[in-house]
Amino acid sequence: MFKSEKLALHLRQLIDSGQWKAHEKLPSLREQAQISGYSLITVLNAYQTLETQGIIYAKDKSGYYVNERSASQTLLNAGVHAAEHIQINSAVFHYLKNTQAAGFIPFGSAFPNPELLFNQKFMQLLAQHAKRKQSYLNNDNMPPGNLALRQMIASRYMMQGVQCNSDDIVITSGALNALNLALEALTKPSDVILLQETVFYGAWQAAERLGLQVVTIPDHSEFGLHIEAFEKALQQYPVKVCWLMLNTQNPLGYTVSNNIKKKIAALLEQYQVYLIEDDVYLELNYGGKKPLPMTYFDQHQRVLHCSTFSKSLGMGTRVGWIHARQFSDAIQHLQLMSTLSVSPLVQNALVDFLSQHHYEKHLRHLCLRLAQYKQVIYDYLKLHLPQQCKVDIYPSGYFLWIKLPEYCDSYHIYQTLLQHKISIAPSLLFRPKHSLQNCIRLNCSYELHTDIEQALQQLCRVIADNIAEKG
Amino acid sequence: MFKSEKLALHLRQLIDSGQWKAHEKLPSLREQAQISGYSLITVLNAYQTLETQGIIYAKDKSGYYVNERSASQTLLNAGVHAAEHIQINSAVFHYLKNTQAAGFIPFGSAFPNPELLFNQKFMQLLAQHAKRKQSYLNNDNMPPGNLALRQMIASRYMMQGVQCNSDDIVITSGALNALNLALEALTKPSDVILLQETVFYGAWQAAERLGLQVVTIPDHSEFGLHIEAFEKALQQYPVKVCWLMLNTQNPLGYTVSNNIKKKIAALLEQYQVYLIEDDVYLELNYGGKKPLPMTYFDQHQRVLHCSTFSKSLGMGTRVGWIHARQFSDAIQHLQLMSTLSVSPLVQNALVDFLSQHHYEKHLRHLCLRLAQYKQVIYDYLKLHLPQQCKVDIYPSGYFLWIKLPEYCDSYHIYQTLLQHKISIAPSLLFRPKHSLQNCIRLNCSYELHTDIEQALQQLCRVIADNIAEKG
Repeated sequence: MFKSEKLALHLRQLIDSGQWKAHEKLPSLREQAQISGYSLITVLNAYQTLETQGIIYAKDKSGYYVNERSASQTLLNAGVHAAEHIQINSAVFHYLKNTQAAGFIPFGSAFPNPELLFNQKFMQLLAQHAKRKQSYLNNDNMPPGNLALRQMIASRYMMQGVQCNSDDIVITSGALNALNLALEALTKPSDVILLQETVFYGAWQAAERLGLQVVTIPDHSEFGLHIEAFEKALQQYPVKVCWLMLNTQNPLGYTVSNNIKKKIAALLEQYQVYLIEDDVYLELNYGGKKPLPMTYFDQHQRVLHCSTFSKSLGMGTRVGWIHARQFSDAIQHLQLMSTLSVSPLVQNALVDFLSQHHYEKHLRHLCLRLAQYKQVIYDYLKLHLPQQCKVDIYPSGYFLWIKLPEYCDSYHIYQTLLQHKISIAPSLLFRPKHSLQNCIRLNCSYELHTDIEQALQQLCRVIADNIAEKG
Repeated sequence: MFKSEKLALHLRQLIDSGQWKAHEKLPSLREQAQISGYSLITVLNAYQTLETQGIIYAKDKSGYYVNERSASQTLLNAGVHAAEHIQINSAVFHYLKNTQAAGFIPFGSAFPNPELLFNQKFMQLLAQHAKRKQSYLNNDNMPPGNLALRQMIASRYMMQGVQCNSDDIVITSGALNALNLALEALTKPSDVILLQETVFYGAWQAAERLGLQVVTIPDHSEFGLHIEAFEKALQQYPVKVCWLMLNTQNPLGYTVSNNIKKKIAALLEQYQVYLIEDDVYLELNYGGKKPLPMTYFDQHQRVLHCSTFSKSLGMGTRVGWIHARQFSDAIQHLQLMSTLSVSPLVQNALVDFLSQHHYEKHLRHLCLRLAQYKQVIYDYLKLHLPQQCKVDIYPSGYFLWIKLPEYCDSYHIYQTLLQHKISIAPSLLFRPKHSLQNCIRLNCSYELHTDIEQALQQLCRVIADNIAEKG
């Protein structure tokens, strides 16, 4: 970040936070230079940046004044947050510990039902490679990872019309590792990144770990991503990297249209911003047709697309990747400093599994079941939830998003259900700032057996109690 | 770090770097407060710290002056280095890429000969677990990792007389991941850590990644670790964490005596410093008796001991651990934000392998071969290397450390040998500061077959040429 950008951002924060009111006079250039320790030129540049953005206005000879909050500013009510102050980690830690506890009904789990991911053929291939000395001695598991596997991943991109070759791909220890490596390669501490307002908590955790600042944009009730807010944010903040989820967004579930994706790509280029695309549910579209990754629309190598096999073949797989292109070397550097290599056994088994065309069959079967189980649970909830509740359903993934009346407290519901050995994901996990209290993400990758039905019954009862209590 | 420690460190750097000479007068307290922006009290505390350390002295009413460099300061000639300026990454990256290239004689490799690590029984167990649905669905691979495996690791500590239970252990994706997690959990950017002068490059890389400052202590020609320098460093610098390798030190090979380990433990407590112990070659002692980890001598929970199965069962294993004790939660937090889980398959197979007592047999066999191969190569080198060269050999591990005359350039030798498809590890990799030009780390885990003998012959020839050229 340039010095003047840094100063503009700092002043912007004072205005956003209400410390400086509309029509209040800003310190003169000379005063500001003294206060901030920056040069006059830097201060002038910062003031002019804010003026261009419509945040302040100049009066002849009299100086600069704070503008009225415009509609666009209200749109970005979120402002910039230092990720270090979010402290969601202990809440998330507590939550993750509970969802993995034995004997719990895992409605709160982030992972699909492992029974559905289990594939006999894949296990056989793993076992074959485990016994094959050669696949064990092979050194090809070092970064960027197994060449044959990278070729297969590249050809899957090509089938979607995305330019890609094996050198563009870096294999990682799952998607979370992929996303963290991409973010670390693209940022320095105190850089500004942009997130959707309601997101996978891992994005905030990564930002916190790397000492970044975060701008968020609100969700759009119809289109998912709020493209106007996105543009305003790029205009008004020195955003370096966006981390977005555009397909089967976690936790909300929507998939952004190609039209909006095109607009995003154009804005990335216009504002010279990079995009890390979190696309872990890539293969979980019920219609069988994968949504297009942002790399399809990106003519200027501004997108790093991250995905994984863990969401379709089991989290024990721990094999993800980054379509990293010009950043491949930088990311391999980081890998050589941290996780080193990815299991050669699993990489080799994946190569066979993909090349023998077992993967498509597995995915068809998996998506059929996910669609069916989710619909059954959705129907159950429509019938048994209090009428004040709304449930969002989309034709992909395995989550439902339950919206309770605004006065409800889903964290309280979460705590009550823990006593019944049922986990859910309360909405505050997905919004550390501007807390969202009244929603629940529900993992629906389970068949409506007796125990699941009893747990749903319990869930509906606890929700009804919460409504009755608070309403 | 306290403000006064920060200031003292900054002034210390000015003195270390020679910007302030002996008997030069320091700015007055008031002047220093103005220059530095710190309060008078902070400046006074900083000056008093430096006075206690003998770096500066006070003259009545006249102020503070820089002292002559004492013997202890000369001992710590290294000073403090911001890890960000080291830039060894591209050298290391280049080196690692070459050592993994197909068809190269891997004298430069950090990993033992995979043929020696291959164990039929372990492969069978892996294959069995790969086919077992239950071991795939098991959720026990999430942090802190498989309970049974943690119990086995704990009992191995207990057998050495180290207090340990399964809750103290966190399973990681190999040792490099373990060491990085431990360092990240214990430090904040700009903290000072202490390293040995000649070390595994991964320590510097980790420090660079986390924005730390590094103090180094010189090696001791007889005892390996220079305990006087160690104490002086803790006395004179605000060291927060030490990262040391005391058993089969990489690259030098020595193992520190129990007597010195006791002294280290006492100093850690006295100066309230934590130690991350890198002990990856733990099991590779030829006598069969493992050296004691620092946790054995540590009465005050100041040691985090890191090790791995990758150096004895193959790097594809990717299973390491931290004896993390009170830091277990903090480290699991970091894992949940980054690598998440470790392969459940490998963890399960390790449990069986250990509980069925295959591991000890494997290690006995492995160490016998390592001892034998290293001795044969050592004897070859003694016979064929120019007489100006010295070779260090110790009864553990699989490296030899070759010392060429000081005017030799092992990086040049490295580059020449690459053209012959032979890799070596030149000494500059292990000393980014105060560069060490004239040594070579040689991986000796290979039997003296024709191709290895030819490569050794070539190595001796290129070394002789270098000596002739430069001498």
